[in-house]
Amino acid sequence: MGAKMAHKVLLTDCADEPGLIAKITGVCFEHQLNIIKNSEFVDNQQQRFFMRTEFDGELDSVRFLTDLSAVLPQQNRTRLVDAGRKRVVILVTKEAHCLGDLLMKAYYGALDVEIAAVVGNYEILEPLAQKFDVPFHYVSHEGYSREEHEQAILKVVEPYAPDYVVLAKFMRVLTSGFVSRFPNRIINIHHSFLPAFIGANPYRQAWERGVKIIGATAHFVNDNLDEGPIIKQDVIPVDHSYSADDMAKAGRDVEKSVLSRALALVVNNQVVVNGNKTLVFK
Amino acid sequence: MGAKMAHKVLLTDCADEPGLIAKITGVCFEHQLNIIKNSEFVDNQQQRFFMRTEFDGELDSVRFLTDLSAVLPQQNRTRLVDAGRKRVVILVTKEAHCLGDLLMKAYYGALDVEIAAVVGNYEILEPLAQKFDVPFHYVSHEGYSREEHEQAILKVVEPYAPDYVVLAKFMRVLTSGFVSRFPNRIINIHHSFLPAFIGANPYRQAWERGVKIIGATAHFVNDNLDEGPIIKQDVIPVDHSYSADDMAKAGRDVEKSVLSRALALVVNNQVVVNGNKTLVFK
Amino acid sequence: MGAKMAHKVLLTDCADEPGLIAKITGVCFEHQLNIIKNSEFVDNQQQRFFMRTEFDGELDSVRFLTDLSAVLPQQNRTRLVDAGRKRVVILVTKEAHCLGDLLMKAYYGALDVEIAAVVGNYEILEPLAQKFDVPFHYVSHEGYSREEHEQAILKVVEPYAPDYVVLAKFMRVLTSGFVSRFPNRIINIHHSFLPAFIGANPYRQAWERGVKIIGATAHFVNDNLDEGPIIKQDVIPVDHSYSADDMAKAGRDVEKSVLSRALALVVNNQVVVNGNKTLVFK
Amino acid sequence: MGAKMAHKVLLTDCADEPGLIAKITGVCFEHQLNIIKNSEFVDNQQQRFFMRTEFDGELDSVRFLTDLSAVLPQQNRTRLVDAGRKRVVILVTKEAHCLGDLLMKAYYGALDVEIAAVVGNYEILEPLAQKFDVPFHYVSHEGYSREEHEQAILKVVEPYAPDYVVLAKFMRVLTSGFVSRFPNRIINIHHSFLPAFIGANPYRQAWERGVKIIGATAHFVNDNLDEGPIIKQDVIPVDHSYSADDMAKAGRDVEKSVLSRALALVVNNQVVVNGNKTLVFK
Repeated sequence: MGAKMAHKVLLTDCADEPGLIAKITGVCFEHQLNIIKNSEFVDNQQQRFFMRTEFDGELDSVRFLTDLSAVLPQQNRTRLVDAGRKRVVILVTKEAHCLGDLLMKAYYGALDVEIAAVVGNYEILEPLAQKFDVPFHYVSHEGYSREEHEQAILKVVEPYAPDYVVLAKFMRVLTSGFVSRFPNRIINIHHSFLPAFIGANPYRQAWERGVKIIGATAHFVNDNLDEGPIIKQDVIPVDHSYSADDMAKAGRDVEKSVLSRALALVVNNQVVVNGNKTLVFK
Repeated sequence: MGAKMAHKVLLTDCADEPGLIAKITGVCFEHQLNIIKNSEFVDNQQQRFFMRTEFDGELDSVRFLTDLSAVLPQQNRTRLVDAGRKRVVILVTKEAHCLGDLLMKAYYGALDVEIAAVVGNYEILEPLAQKFDVPFHYVSHEGYSREEHEQAILKVVEPYAPDYVVLAKFMRVLTSGFVSRFPNRIINIHHSFLPAFIGANPYRQAWERGVKIIGATAHFVNDNLDEGPIIKQDVIPVDHSYSADDMAKAGRDVEKSVLSRALALVVNNQVVVNGNKTLVFK
Repeated sequence: MGAKMAHKVLLTDCADEPGLIAKITGVCFEHQLNIIKNSEFVDNQQQRFFMRTEFDGELDSVRFLTDLSAVLPQQNRTRLVDAGRKRVVILVTKEAHCLGDLLMKAYYGALDVEIAAVVGNYEILEPLAQKFDVPFHYVSHEGYSREEHEQAILKVVEPYAPDYVVLAKFMRVLTSGFVSRFPNRIINIHHSFLPAFIGANPYRQAWERGVKIIGATAHFVNDNLDEGPIIKQDVIPVDHSYSADDMAKAGRDVEKSVLSRALALVVNNQVVVNGNKTLVFK
Repeated sequence: MGAKMAHKVLLTDCADEPGLIAKITGVCFEHQLNIIKNSEFVDNQQQRFFMRTEFDGELDSVRFLTDLSAVLPQQNRTRLVDAGRKRVVILVTKEAHCLGDLLMKAYYGALDVEIAAVVGNYEILEPLAQKFDVPFHYVSHEGYSREEHEQAILKVVEPYAPDYVVLAKFMRVLTSGFVSRFPNRIINIHHSFLPAFIGANPYRQAWERGVKIIGATAHFVNDNLDEGPIIKQDVIPVDHSYSADDMAKAGRDVEKSVLSRALALVVNNQVVVNGNKTLVFK
């Protein structure tokens, strides 16, 4: 009802028109909010305006949003979100490096997430999750259809009500049925510099092509394999002396680093999806 | 007198107080200016507010600045500058790589500068300047005191009325007398990752220390050698097989690249000096 | 006939078998050659041995190669090459940045090449070549079939007897007829991080995909467009605020840098083609 | 006594003279050893020859070393070392990120070390070590002289007979008494790009200087603070919006990555100390 101290992020997403920065920051000023960081972007092709406004202060959200809607174009997808910790569930298969990095960074406070649970289609990573007192759910895919397996995963995941689902080297393709339950809320790490080497065995493909750089890509998952909005990419140099296995081994460091940094951007409300791309506000 | 089409950058620099973004962008809106890019920064230690607002539109500068001063704190160092091409004079000694890169980039339009003249304390780079039809002035230091030499340079430089003076591997220390003529308008490239290896022979120093990375630093020149506000830095990896000469050779690429990129930021009005540091707006 | 002072590189390329390093460096020792740098690589899949041995000393090439052939497997593709300057012809279309960088680096000695000539299918870059006193040949493609155009280019290029042909943003696809005249001696710069964005308008493709990094690839040209052995790749970060044009503009720097560095590796005899890949010896 | 299968690294370190590569690889060949990787370096200033020869095969070490000494200059510091896992003890203070990364990488096999124990001058990291079943020893410095504290640490460390002692953000200066017990076997991570910002609070120093890049340096510890042979360095970009705390936070990632990679190089026998520098063989 009344105003209370808040640390929030306003993500404006509306048709472009003159004066939007002045109008929106003007409403913030009237509400005596302290703007910590403000960044805007205009998509000239779509004539669309985006702004990320991080602020704190005593906030009466209802009044604030009402006043905002008076200055914004009628049709808009503007959201007011909390700046705090997010809850995630992590899906894994057999590889430990990405999961390990997320657990460790959450443990020492470098990543502002609560890892509510880990779900694996193999049991092998259960001891790693347990070290950090995170519940591990073993949901094997063997003997089940893809849909049955995903239903079993959903049954485990949904009670945790995660803000985001993180695929930390989860080596199975998700159906659109599953994906549609978490629109723009599933983050995957793909072990190549997309769109190079889509699909299986990207390191093998990279080795065969003789590339001099390998990379990793964190992206939101949509219906098309490895084609969702890209959040973060990074690369490392390799040379002719690397076998495909050496590339895979060297690639682990960039995979875990890209996934962790992408997740940090997402939970910090710096990432806005715009069609099949992301805006990443500094 | 009246309004005319303009592409300008407003660089706000004033004490911090609530509502400045709203107020300043509000004035832009009232003047029907189209904001292309807006970035702000608050120096919390100094309680100082900085904002870079790039816009175009029909501008009546006098009315605009009057309206602005009504909303800004009284004491402020806000400036309204043109977005267009800047005029520079380049000082050199013997090495061609930085001068060559600036001439070439200006030639094919990658750097929005008019290189009005090149001044050298040796003649060796005259043919290079001439290739690009840029006047070259040979001002030898031999037989002159430092002050006499600087006076001779000034006499050549000042008629060009340069926006910036670029030291493209000019291997002489400037006195404060010279520096004070172009406050925060002299840009130097130092061939180390400052503050490591201040002074002479930084590559030799780097080699002796056995570093694994070498770098370059572009900075504004002030009274203290190599201690002015840093604009841009970059590094490249080296290893034990590099002699000091190999480092110097490898370093040329990063020197020219850092100087060119620093100059591009400066002429694009993205750099604001704040004490002995720079703010570099994206 | 007799021995003379030489600075040479021996590029061994033969079936792998035990003791090759000892045998080859042993022959060097017997000939009192001073090995400056020695690097080897075994392609375990092909069971093939590669070694780059850079040396100087008084060399009787005939005796040296005879002694070598006594210790090497019979079938081998070992070559003895000069360490010195190479002669290149550069093909261009309209863009100046890669040509400009090569001309400038050759001018101040950062690239050990003699640029014998520049050939353009437009006249626009003629003044740039002339600044550096390099002959420019205008060979328009208009009104000619692809084969006729290539014949006209060959007629201009071949008299220069270039060691390498460099495509410095030459925007036409070469037929296998042309390519076969310079096997593994044509170097191209492709303005993407291959194999991503093969073909036309890679920056447009990159922008549409919303990648966060763009790159460039220097490669030897073979019959398949953009599929020859990769020599060098590099990348730069971009973000959502870049238009396709901004990416192209930012990409120029990485294009010219990758092409120059690839050419430096090639002329320094550090690059050996192994199937559709390169070995790049440090 | 007799020959047995071995995977070893021969680290040759002797006065330079002609034919060393041929002679040493010749001895390997006579002993029917399979050279996996061979890299050499000549320090021209010191006229000293270094070579790293990694091989496997049936090895009679005594005969091998005898045959080697027949071909090497009499005075030499050549060593034959095992290629396998190394044992380390880690010293820590309060920060978790470097220790966490080492524990995690050892856990999933990305770092070929046995972490025998962790020693802390605070108790705070005990739970982290325990998660990975590594003994933690709390050795407080409070109420003790520096020498007494080091004696207490030595008493704990020495029974583990570690190959290397790793200072993973151990925030105390070691005396030469301690250091001399582990010559070139103590690895430290310093949170700056040495030699910039030696000593305390490097992030604060970096922030005050307004640098645009921050870094980390892993080095062997000798008697002079932060002045031992550098093994590995890396950097990350920062900008004016970073406070000293933001830099420290951002720097953690590069600190842990540099320390882990330096340790990997060391345990893989790729690092040779040459005076106050390191050679790092690829």
